[in-house]
Amino acid sequence: MQKNIAIVLMGVAGVGKTTIGLALSKAAGIPFFDGDDYHSSSNRDKMSAGIALSDEDRTAWLFELQAVIENTLHKSSCILACSALKKAHRAILEKNSNAIQFVYLEGSKKLIEQRLENRIGHYFPASLLASQLETLEPPENAFTISITQTPSAIVEMIMKTAFNQNTKKAEVGLMGLGVMGKSLTQNFVRNGISVAVYNRELKGVEESVAKNFVESLPLLKDTQAFCDYTSFIDALQSPKKIFLLIEAGRATETILSELAILLNKGDIIIDLGNTFYKETETRIHNFAKKGIHLIGAGISGGERGALNGASIMPSGTKEAYDLVAPYLNSIAAKDKNNQACSTYIGEGGSGHFVKMVHNGIEYAEMQLLAEIYGLARAAGKNPTEIAKMLSSWKLDKLDSFLLNATINILNTKEGEQWLIDKIVDVSESKGTGSWATNALTNAAIPASLIANALYARQISSYKNLRVQLEKNYPNKKEGISINEASLKNAYHFTRMIIHFQGFWLLDEFSKNNNWHLNLSEIARIWTKGCIIQSDFMETLTPILKITPTILLDERITEQIKTTAPAATEIAITALENKVATPIISDAIQFFNAISTAHSTANLIQAQRDFFGAHTFLRIGATATEHYLWES
Amino acid sequence: MQKNIAIVLMGVAGVGKTTIGLALSKAAGIPFFDGDDYHSSSNRDKMSAGIALSDEDRTAWLFELQAVIENTLHKSSCILACSALKKAHRAILEKNSNAIQFVYLEGSKKLIEQRLENRIGHYFPASLLASQLETLEPPENAFTISITQTPSAIVEMIMKTAFNQNTKKAEVGLMGLGVMGKSLTQNFVRNGISVAVYNRELKGVEESVAKNFVESLPLLKDTQAFCDYTSFIDALQSPKKIFLLIEAGRATETILSELAILLNKGDIIIDLGNTFYKETETRIHNFAKKGIHLIGAGISGGERGALNGASIMPSGTKEAYDLVAPYLNSIAAKDKNNQACSTYIGEGGSGHFVKMVHNGIEYAEMQLLAEIYGLARAAGKNPTEIAKMLSSWKLDKLDSFLLNATINILNTKEGEQWLIDKIVDVSESKGTGSWATNALTNAAIPASLIANALYARQISSYKNLRVQLEKNYPNKKEGISINEASLKNAYHFTRMIIHFQGFWLLDEFSKNNNWHLNLSEIARIWTKGCIIQSDFMETLTPILKITPTILLDERITEQIKTTAPAATEIAITALENKVATPIISDAIQFFNAISTAHSTANLIQAQRDFFGAHTFLRIGATATEHYLWES
Repeated sequence: MQKNIAIVLMGVAGVGKTTIGLALSKAAGIPFFDGDDYHSSSNRDKMSAGIALSDEDRTAWLFELQAVIENTLHKSSCILACSALKKAHRAILEKNSNAIQFVYLEGSKKLIEQRLENRIGHYFPASLLASQLETLEPPENAFTISITQTPSAIVEMIMKTAFNQNTKKAEVGLMGLGVMGKSLTQNFVRNGISVAVYNRELKGVEESVAKNFVESLPLLKDTQAFCDYTSFIDALQSPKKIFLLIEAGRATETILSELAILLNKGDIIIDLGNTFYKETETRIHNFAKKGIHLIGAGISGGERGALNGASIMPSGTKEAYDLVAPYLNSIAAKDKNNQACSTYIGEGGSGHFVKMVHNGIEYAEMQLLAEIYGLARAAGKNPTEIAKMLSSWKLDKLDSFLLNATINILNTKEGEQWLIDKIVDVSESKGTGSWATNALTNAAIPASLIANALYARQISSYKNLRVQLEKNYPNKKEGISINEASLKNAYHFTRMIIHFQGFWLLDEFSKNNNWHLNLSEIARIWTKGCIIQSDFMETLTPILKITPTILLDERITEQIKTTAPAATEIAITALENKVATPIISDAIQFFNAISTAHSTANLIQAQRDFFGAHTFLRIGATATEHYLWES
Repeated sequence: MQKNIAIVLMGVAGVGKTTIGLALSKAAGIPFFDGDDYHSSSNRDKMSAGIALSDEDRTAWLFELQAVIENTLHKSSCILACSALKKAHRAILEKNSNAIQFVYLEGSKKLIEQRLENRIGHYFPASLLASQLETLEPPENAFTISITQTPSAIVEMIMKTAFNQNTKKAEVGLMGLGVMGKSLTQNFVRNGISVAVYNRELKGVEESVAKNFVESLPLLKDTQAFCDYTSFIDALQSPKKIFLLIEAGRATETILSELAILLNKGDIIIDLGNTFYKETETRIHNFAKKGIHLIGAGISGGERGALNGASIMPSGTKEAYDLVAPYLNSIAAKDKNNQACSTYIGEGGSGHFVKMVHNGIEYAEMQLLAEIYGLARAAGKNPTEIAKMLSSWKLDKLDSFLLNATINILNTKEGEQWLIDKIVDVSESKGTGSWATNALTNAAIPASLIANALYARQISSYKNLRVQLEKNYPNKKEGISINEASLKNAYHFTRMIIHFQGFWLLDEFSKNNNWHLNLSEIARIWTKGCIIQSDFMETLTPILKITPTILLDERITEQIKTTAPAATEIAITALENKVATPIISDAIQFFNAISTAHSTANLIQAQRDFFGAHTFLRIGATATEHYLWES
């Protein structure tokens, strides 16, 4: 809690001390004392008679006012209207306290005269103004505010300067102060956007999270903190723009059902959580019935991205997007041309879908790096040596956020030991990997690397089984021979197939859902801020303007042809040495299958017809047929 | 429609003509006329006075009755009780019609006397019996039924013989007369189980399907056919047992909502469709609220299996299962010990789940055969030569239904050309493959071969893309060199991994859902009748009694060790020659990963913590930690 202060509104008669005092009292919720009410009757008589008060007249009055303030300050801040024209007068008022803040209301003689003449029923005759102006010793340490402004503007200035508080409602609200929410709040404020933040209050679990957060950072001195819905929403400008950084699922559902009641037509919710895209579609639809906009916005970049600029994938109606675009752009990372790494993705849940595919690509890229690491380790390199090797790959346009993360990790030591060697080899996953796998599975768009990267993580979780089975099948080799250039090319090849699959998945879903996804724009907003940012993403941005099928682009074709033999060589080496490389292997399998004009699926169709009479299509025919197989 | 008939219940007084007539009228739903009601008053007086009727007396009466019958027959069948003792009497009754069926109720004099004495309020004195018996000329073409039986037994006999209708209600009902429904109906009937069948009536699409079906096969002469729910359900014994062979999804849903209204407590529905197992769980739960049992039963075997014995996987409450077990067993295939290939799988939707996994294994086995075929073809063999090679593998305990199907297909020629070469190489799939993939994905049980077999089919469907890409990457080779023994061992190895994954998936789901699946029993019911029946399934049946993890069994361990090098060799040959072999390849990748005690998933955990603060577990620690990585 801040200490109590007394605002003394000073200045000659007619500057509006009473008017401002009353309005300020209401805005700040603290008592107001009008000095005029504390004059002795003899003083009043003098003033009514047009006789200037002597210093002695004033002294007794000022001591009276000083006592009133001092008593009040024990309990609360307060406001006093008092001319306090001389330095000596002010000295009396602040004699026992360092909690007095003078606010000097200043205006030209002409303006004040005009105002006094318009006054009705006030006992201060305009003729005394000259005497007061003569007496006035302008203060040095007061906030000096021109009375040419409207009273409400003056009140706002005082609130902001004297109470360090902003009555101006916040431009955006942010709910959920986890790592991401805290980082985004700072990002907003650093970009000049006023924020009100909310975090729930859970006794013993989450207490005063919002309040403690804003008090912990000087940057957030103007950020209002709340733990109740109503005050939080009240503190926002309309139309209200509320950013959710809540765990997807039940927690988000709970908050949304509250917001559905409290928000009004035209307000906008921006769900930045990893919500399943179909859920987002349903919610957009339901909120639209109430006239409330919901934007589903995928966000990538982790804590660093949220703090310094993330990659953001918003979707919903274009109308709602346009209302929040400036805010999204302000917290987004900037690409190499200084454009925000946020763009309108499309209708419905397309933004969360694109984020889901982003995460799918991320899964595959991470598993690929784990395989590269595993192969290099099996070839006898230590983590530092592997980090050095990976660092050298940056020079060949293979730089990426995840490559750097890996280099950093492999260079991390505790004393003489590498930290990586102390971490349990069981990897976890949250929803997006399996959602992406389900989506591609059900839509029959076999972006198999996402699925197989997920399965690799899942296999790792069967640690006991792995240990048991290694005892049964103990033929693992170490010290295998790996060609580093081939390893680099296998890495590059596999990444090209991963990205092919990712954009293919986006393109096919876009067609199926009429989303009109702009793949090049999506690649562009993925060039900075997000986890899968990389040199290769920069390469893809112009290519995707020409074709969604990057394997058909001649630049990619050339790189594939150059690197495929190395990928095959590495896959064979891994096979020969029983090192599991599911992603490198599947990239080659997929590439070989998708570039084979004549497959053996005709046998499968024949089998299906043989046992299930499912029929098949004969080459050149238009209708399927069932064949009467002999058996 | 059958033509109308008149049943004339004949015989002397006291045999029960009226009693039987009334009961029969009720059972058959047709009018009953009691001849006694049509006697003239003079005839009645004579009979009451103990005077026998003369032939003249009778003639007028019989003409009267003949007219009644004739009038009625225009509209409906009917029943007449009439002594019709003499041949001449009967001739009058049938003078204008060939639609009269005499039923002669026959009893000993002693029995009839006894009955007449017990009669109260009947005007026929027992003394006239002797005269009637003297007059009686036993009929030659009548159904003669002994009155020693109970009236209901007599009614049933008449219904069966005279109306050619079985009042004995059908033991089971079967809805849906597609290929599977028709085959199962015959299977039931051949096993002595009476069936009522239902098929919907859709003008111009499905007309008189049920009626035409039962009329088309002499075997089904006693099978009742319906196209309306109410009559169909009415024709079943209680508790009613209704087998659904309806397309899973909306069609099944529609029928179930009707059955929910029409069935009673204790009735049983057996859904033999490929319903998603969670849907089955929901339905079991909902029907249970009404006291109606629902059994979800997977069935495999295609048309042949349905006709001659299928593999059946029923689940639901044990109570309900026990009520239908004899019927399921009767239509099931028999294993080598003549046990039915049907067994209680477990609670809830476990039966449909097991069927789904069956289909997953089927997908992988089919894709494997397609890869073997592709490799052999690339090595220069023609389909007949490949069929010959596959036939030789049977001798090494590698026989299976799908191997035989493939041999059969590859041997099929149209003139000089192989049919396989005329089939479009785009394979399709129905729901179970993607359901299985979703299920394993979401439960984190990476039975990756099912997923990758599905993806292989999906890749095949991108025919245009494949053709385009082959132009860009035209390096396919033909005439590659393959070692046949290695190919056979690669086939065996891959199948062992496929089966490992399948039973692992079942075992893990069983644990997660408390299903207590008996894996050995499941393997046993898969040894005959179903699509994945094979020699290897016979091998697995005893092994699965010992461990669900077949890779830990020493017999399998030995075979894996023997065949893994060949699988690796084949995978390498395929890689070198750019032949896609996703299943063989993934089997090795999976095997290498699952038998690696120390994986590289520690790097993935480090990466996740690096960018997302997801934390990791340190070796030996009990709680996870977030590391403050330098960046």
